[in-house]
Amino acid sequence: MTDSGLDSVQSPQCLVNGQQLSELSVLDRGLAYGDGLFETMRVAEGRIALLEYHLARLRRGIAALKMEADLTEIVTELNMAAAQLHNGVLKMILTRGLGKRGYGIPSPVQPTRICQSLPPVDYPVDNARNGVRLFECQTRMAIQPLLAGIKHLNRLEQVLARSEWSDTTYAEGMVRDTSGNVIECTMSNIFMLHEGRWVTPDVSGCGVQGIMRDYLIDQLGQIDDPVEVMTVDLSTLMESTEVFCCNSLFGVWPVIGLKNASWPIGPRTRQAQRLAEQVI
Amino acid sequence: MTDSGLDSVQSPQCLVNGQQLSELSVLDRGLAYGDGLFETMRVAEGRIALLEYHLARLRRGIAALKMEADLTEIVTELNMAAAQLHNGVLKMILTRGLGKRGYGIPSPVQPTRICQSLPPVDYPVDNARNGVRLFECQTRMAIQPLLAGIKHLNRLEQVLARSEWSDTTYAEGMVRDTSGNVIECTMSNIFMLHEGRWVTPDVSGCGVQGIMRDYLIDQLGQIDDPVEVMTVDLSTLMESTEVFCCNSLFGVWPVIGLKNASWPIGPRTRQAQRLAEQVI
Repeated sequence: MTDSGLDSVQSPQCLVNGQQLSELSVLDRGLAYGDGLFETMRVAEGRIALLEYHLARLRRGIAALKMEADLTEIVTELNMAAAQLHNGVLKMILTRGLGKRGYGIPSPVQPTRICQSLPPVDYPVDNARNGVRLFECQTRMAIQPLLAGIKHLNRLEQVLARSEWSDTTYAEGMVRDTSGNVIECTMSNIFMLHEGRWVTPDVSGCGVQGIMRDYLIDQLGQIDDPVEVMTVDLSTLMESTEVFCCNSLFGVWPVIGLKNASWPIGPRTRQAQRLAEQVI
Repeated sequence: MTDSGLDSVQSPQCLVNGQQLSELSVLDRGLAYGDGLFETMRVAEGRIALLEYHLARLRRGIAALKMEADLTEIVTELNMAAAQLHNGVLKMILTRGLGKRGYGIPSPVQPTRICQSLPPVDYPVDNARNGVRLFECQTRMAIQPLLAGIKHLNRLEQVLARSEWSDTTYAEGMVRDTSGNVIECTMSNIFMLHEGRWVTPDVSGCGVQGIMRDYLIDQLGQIDDPVEVMTVDLSTLMESTEVFCCNSLFGVWPVIGLKNASWPIGPRTRQAQRLAEQVI
């Protein structure tokens, strides 16, 4: 099992609709319009971390985009790919399928599943241990409730935000919306300890409802340390006493600085980090 | 030439980076993030209509997305494809290129060019002759000045708006932004005669700066019938005396109805239509 895991790491595998392929039709609406969804999942010891959370978001995305997709088939494929990969990252892209001309959704239409098996990401261990500094992105996210929260393939805002810095001093970048509120980081969600309580931004107007975010909201709630989901302005973030960012691949990174603010890595951040480490 | 044109219509051709292919890598950032641009061009008698306008928008898009792309190569390819196609539609997709993991732009990166040769679109001739009714879309467009005007591959809002109706009574749908202002139709721009002057919505916050829109602004300006580009609320549209929508494939369609409003097809709409017909 370990050997086959290593092999697949060395030559990343890809299934397109269950067939071993690494290409897809130029007519696919995933390319033409970003008409689809994706999930990036951590695989450890042959199992997908937080699979139920990923599937819940996929379901919400399928509903929001009015797609027709068979989740049973997807789950079977994901579990088989995870068993083969053993340790690494699975990326599942689900597009509307082949397009005819124009934006109108063809009927019938068959979604395209693209299941990529990738090696583990080697983030610097220092990020989790000693924390990260955030870059302050100038790219603002547009407010679009119809697409907020889900992980669709229209990600130009993230591309633009991430393109703002190359200085490796910054492991992540904080992004606000066009109203100036703090939303998330380019590839992770943000939590802050404000007046003694965990707070994370509402993502019903824009941003991604991250898997690790939802898991931590659930877990912290269970140990009587509830997370308040709310509109967060910049001063709320800057006045917080602990800050971290999180996603389902790296877990929790304490945030130690943004602009002129610096934060200690407190015990409650370490507690959230341990909760994340239990599942990834 | 006519024969080869017909052949290519019957079996649409596609070039990926100049190679005759109909597939592209699943690692392309065009698929992963909609990280790219496209242009859909009318080809008549082997020539691309309004090529300079298409190239101008492509240049603006390349700058907005911080892409690196060689337009000379693109123009050569487009002209060769147009000569071979003779009559029909060329669709050029230009993506950032192959991605590594994550939103960060790899360096160096080589853009992917996808040049599709397609048959002419057979819109009902009745649309141009007797006008169309517009569906009133409920999908609102988010305000994102960083991406407004250009023709990028993040088109989920258009997909959602177009999915709202299937009744063929409506040839197009009118779309507003999240502030309620009228922006455009799902695949075309909108012009209206308001208090005796042509008006078209400002698309600096959202919407596409259409090729035919820009051409008509230039042409109407030259015949002393200037078009005012401004913020357009719903009542401005409803109180207008003539309305049309336009794009670079179908030219001008008079609009004869929306909700409880109906409009005549006036002489100034016919004049705009003739201007369009001169170039497509």
